[in-house]
Amino acid sequence: MSWKDVDLQKMHRLFYPQVPVVVTVGLENHVGGMPAIWCMPLSFSPPLVGLGIAPEHETYKMILGARAFGVNWLSLSYAAKVCELGEISGGAYENKLSDVGFTTIKGKRTSQPLLREASAILECELRERHRTGTHELMIGEVVRAAANNWFENYWDFARYDPLLYAGTTSGNLRNWIFISHRGKNVNVALKNQT
Amino acid sequence: MSWKDVDLQKMHRLFYPQVPVVVTVGLENHVGGMPAIWCMPLSFSPPLVGLGIAPEHETYKMILGARAFGVNWLSLSYAAKVCELGEISGGAYENKLSDVGFTTIKGKRTSQPLLREASAILECELRERHRTGTHELMIGEVVRAAANNWFENYWDFARYDPLLYAGTTSGNLRNWIFISHRGKNVNVALKNQT
Repeated sequence: MSWKDVDLQKMHRLFYPQVPVVVTVGLENHVGGMPAIWCMPLSFSPPLVGLGIAPEHETYKMILGARAFGVNWLSLSYAAKVCELGEISGGAYENKLSDVGFTTIKGKRTSQPLLREASAILECELRERHRTGTHELMIGEVVRAAANNWFENYWDFARYDPLLYAGTTSGNLRNWIFISHRGKNVNVALKNQT
Repeated sequence: MSWKDVDLQKMHRLFYPQVPVVVTVGLENHVGGMPAIWCMPLSFSPPLVGLGIAPEHETYKMILGARAFGVNWLSLSYAAKVCELGEISGGAYENKLSDVGFTTIKGKRTSQPLLREASAILECELRERHRTGTHELMIGEVVRAAANNWFENYWDFARYDPLLYAGTTSGNLRNWIFISHRGKNVNVALKNQT
């Protein structure tokens, strides 16, 4: 099958489906966070993760201040809440995470907020930053990892239904699209339709 | 549901499932490549991707020499060939990619080898490198992206069945495990059973 060129501004969509995480952070009296798709491991030892994030985000500024952050994996049943987190800005919220219905608990190692509804979490300390074009790569050292009993050396995908982000639909009613490895897709309508 | 701690050496598995790409590179008379799971976009403009790779790999050394590389997405039907690429080292092969049964063609912009069987490809020029623990993050600028007709602004997942890497089974017979969003998992036995 032959190829045709893809607009370079859309090349990131070739990486879909990707599992979004929710990045969480607390600073002073504010608790914030956002879904992030550009997050991956960078080293086994020390255990490092890289988070690509645009500096305009309130979450970015809070991580700079806190020098630490949480990473949270939510299962497909939380798709709507994860999307909602991606649509509101943290500026006006004291606890953006609880405002969309998540329960936050304090991390044991970093004191950073974590989502009790998460299937797995990481606690990370910020180590390095590299500017990369429109984004910045924040590199965190993982000081704690934990998961519920769907994970035992590996995820048990008979029990864990991951979020598999596949893009958004265009047109009059825009949706976030998630595909499921059980064959049942989930669409979440954007709250703020433009 | 409560969490229990996960060994930090296994934290990268919390990111599963992930879509592996095949990184391809040519240097002098050698054509090499390997599957890579740690690969994601880092910027919209310029369009940048980050590839986390261990410096021991022949592919790493070849990218350093070529200052460029290809990124190839294969669909689930190529799972066995992608796994085979991950199990052999390039040192002894003149064209490791064709030796496992792939057809290589030369990239229009970089002259780097690409896999004709790929559903989508990127041609990248090496821009930056950052050592991150056991690995190095190689940052490439995408100078060309192309895809077959399963991609039109977004992937059409009714046609494209991505590789969703979920880990390996342990025990006497080790397998690479791929889950499918159509509900049919694929296991590929490792050729070199230890």
